[in-house]
Amino acid sequence: MVEALWRKRRKVVAVYLDERAGQDSKVERIMALAAEGAVQLKRVPRQYLDQICVGGVHNGVIAWAEELPGYTIRGLLSELEGDQTEPFIVLVDEPSYEHNLGAVLRSALGAGVHGVVVPVRRGKGMSPVVHRVSMGGAEAVPLIREGLSSSLATIRRAGLRTVGCDMDGDPLWDVDLTGPLAIVLGGEGKGLSSTLRARCDQVASVPLMGSLESLNLSVTAGVFLFERARQERLRQQELAEALR
Amino acid sequence: MVEALWRKRRKVVAVYLDERAGQDSKVERIMALAAEGAVQLKRVPRQYLDQICVGGVHNGVIAWAEELPGYTIRGLLSELEGDQTEPFIVLVDEPSYEHNLGAVLRSALGAGVHGVVVPVRRGKGMSPVVHRVSMGGAEAVPLIREGLSSSLATIRRAGLRTVGCDMDGDPLWDVDLTGPLAIVLGGEGKGLSSTLRARCDQVASVPLMGSLESLNLSVTAGVFLFERARQERLRQQELAEALR
Repeated sequence: MVEALWRKRRKVVAVYLDERAGQDSKVERIMALAAEGAVQLKRVPRQYLDQICVGGVHNGVIAWAEELPGYTIRGLLSELEGDQTEPFIVLVDEPSYEHNLGAVLRSALGAGVHGVVVPVRRGKGMSPVVHRVSMGGAEAVPLIREGLSSSLATIRRAGLRTVGCDMDGDPLWDVDLTGPLAIVLGGEGKGLSSTLRARCDQVASVPLMGSLESLNLSVTAGVFLFERARQERLRQQELAEALR
Repeated sequence: MVEALWRKRRKVVAVYLDERAGQDSKVERIMALAAEGAVQLKRVPRQYLDQICVGGVHNGVIAWAEELPGYTIRGLLSELEGDQTEPFIVLVDEPSYEHNLGAVLRSALGAGVHGVVVPVRRGKGMSPVVHRVSMGGAEAVPLIREGLSSSLATIRRAGLRTVGCDMDGDPLWDVDLTGPLAIVLGGEGKGLSSTLRARCDQVASVPLMGSLESLNLSVTAGVFLFERARQERLRQQELAEALR
């Protein structure tokens, strides 16, 4: 909600606030942002919020907003090229649980990912649960719904390195995750499909002990995204050192 | 299930298998382990499994087992000392979602954690959902229910370094996570309590971009556990190098 009002990626039409909501810092921030964006703010009974809420959980405030602008991977990459930003993209095949996709979007926001690609037909798209779990990630990080295979082809043509996450790959700590990069995650419990695997420059794994075959999808994503962040920070430090 | 039969940390009394279950590799492994451990195996109608199942999801097989042996942090640490193993412990304050605790146990298994401590009263304990989500982690990694504060005192006396995870700490990549270590995670969305914080040698954070304040609890745990694994591997490589 705060992310939606603040990022202005889409038009917020109105905000409905529980008439009994106390004046805490979050409510104050929502009111300030609504005033700033000339968004209508209405105090309504809590039962009314319960009635109009789609996802079941509203925490006393609901925003009416237009849909987020649709991105294509091609459009996003050309926008990043215009900004001279090295693209960092994540592709997720069949995120079977909404909580997982939400958690991936939350981590993606924290790790500076520019876009998350999920398949058009299969898997979960945006939903109220995804939005809630993502803690603003769904608002801030473009979610692109495209065929992963053709999306990966576009990504490779744009010069990004593509790293697939699966069992039996190289330990991720030995894999270069700096620069223009796409990380490809397979479906929960399924691993990478052979089609996607064939389109990856390299396959990497989180080395696991014991008899465990894989981590939770959103945990795997988090470990990869922040290993990228670690390596990228080291690279920037080395660059700064060299320029001194 | 497989973990329970294989690890033998507790007595499995009987295994009930859907009479229509096909003979796949998982079923074969369960049958072999049951035979090996002289565990009674019964073929039963699926409706019967539906009836006796506590957690709602049984995937065609249910085991009757005694409770896992209870550990105390003191008992676990002295056992590890006997084995001359450097202890690696995780403490989680108030894991408010069963899925999170399950995912933490799954990551703990994969990262070689020796025990996970959660508070006695508050927070979730073991449940069918935790078991299912942990993918065997709940079976293999001792879950200790103790007051975190007194547990941390015992841990410090045993000579482990204690690192708390919270906002405004040092970037985790700059923090030494090797050797005898306890990682302390705060409650979901709450951070570390001041009492726990005061008992940590150092506070570390996953550096986040954007306006995000925190990651999902199980993702934070995963990033910390596998950063420890990365540093420990590097340390072992350097030790091997020095000995050559």
